[in-house]
Amino acid sequence: MKIITIGREYGSGGRTIGKMVAEKLGIPYYDRELVDKAAKTSGLAVEAIEENDQIVTRSFLYDLAIGTSYGYVNSTGVPLDLNTQVFLAQREAILEFAQSPCVIVGRCADYILRDREDVLKVFIFADRKARLERIAKEYGEEASKAEKLLAQSDKRRARHYEEFTDSIWGARRNYDIMLNSATHGAEKTAEIICMLAKED
Amino acid sequence: MKIITIGREYGSGGRTIGKMVAEKLGIPYYDRELVDKAAKTSGLAVEAIEENDQIVTRSFLYDLAIGTSYGYVNSTGVPLDLNTQVFLAQREAILEFAQSPCVIVGRCADYILRDREDVLKVFIFADRKARLERIAKEYGEEASKAEKLLAQSDKRRARHYEEFTDSIWGARRNYDIMLNSATHGAEKTAEIICMLAKED
Repeated sequence: MKIITIGREYGSGGRTIGKMVAEKLGIPYYDRELVDKAAKTSGLAVEAIEENDQIVTRSFLYDLAIGTSYGYVNSTGVPLDLNTQVFLAQREAILEFAQSPCVIVGRCADYILRDREDVLKVFIFADRKARLERIAKEYGEEASKAEKLLAQSDKRRARHYEEFTDSIWGARRNYDIMLNSATHGAEKTAEIICMLAKED
Repeated sequence: MKIITIGREYGSGGRTIGKMVAEKLGIPYYDRELVDKAAKTSGLAVEAIEENDQIVTRSFLYDLAIGTSYGYVNSTGVPLDLNTQVFLAQREAILEFAQSPCVIVGRCADYILRDREDVLKVFIFADRKARLERIAKEYGEEASKAEKLLAQSDKRRARHYEEFTDSIWGARRNYDIMLNSATHGAEKTAEIICMLAKED
């Protein structure tokens, strides 16, 4: 049994699929929960982490972080910017969770666990039309708002990934399998992932 | 049952996997065979097609094509360059083959059949190390030659795809599933494809 990391485009249903996989395999699912865990181990306030979660606004955060005293400092003792602190706190949580089989959605988990052989790295995507429909249906957003949300969210995820890894979000090189959830549907997509996770 | 198109990185075993899939499903497999078929329907010599297959060297071919008389001409009656003629001839062959279930490897088949709903579009990739090992083992190439072959072949495939489509070779947007053959192995990769091809 493996650790399963799931990267996903906004609106592709990666979260739902991740939950299905965890349920089918009877293992824990970590997404928002990671944030709380990270907060606890790092001493950062949950609110600060939630607010800065997967958003990169360097200058603002740098100002905010200077003069405060969080757990993570650079080699000369200066606190790292808040965004980096959040990343490092989440990283610690991921490493702890990954001591036993689980599903981890987002949070650069594929990168953080890249050197382990017992990790199945999945990326879920879908065409634009299917994602817009899903966002509208799932979150009750109007079409125009869904368009904006989609563009912003994907950009944020890409920037966050590229900020903290030396690789590109969604580049095939980082994954074992990439699935178009619009073609296969959530159920079938989850089944394929489970099938691969059960292999040695 | 579906048409299965397989795009693949050089050395990822896409050809082998395509053959396995065709065998498991009991349907025809088209790769090199497409070239012959294309030659027959277009009247181009098989040798010319083989030579120019998936290679783009515009200026040279343009010179060559001018003044000759192939089947494909532009709107003012001037023969198209040989490379384009080869592409169009292969395209015709693909459209003909795709009248019944089959496996088609390469040749921009995913793009040519992009508007059809009964097509499963697959892309096979693998990490560099695994591909180099595979090239050396399969084709008996020395390490240094394998490096060069890999770089050249992928570049050719990408250029060919981008020359004749409005999209990017290997971009997830063009596929239903992308599989890392080094992680899963050829057998398991073929099984996953068969499983999806049998769905409605």
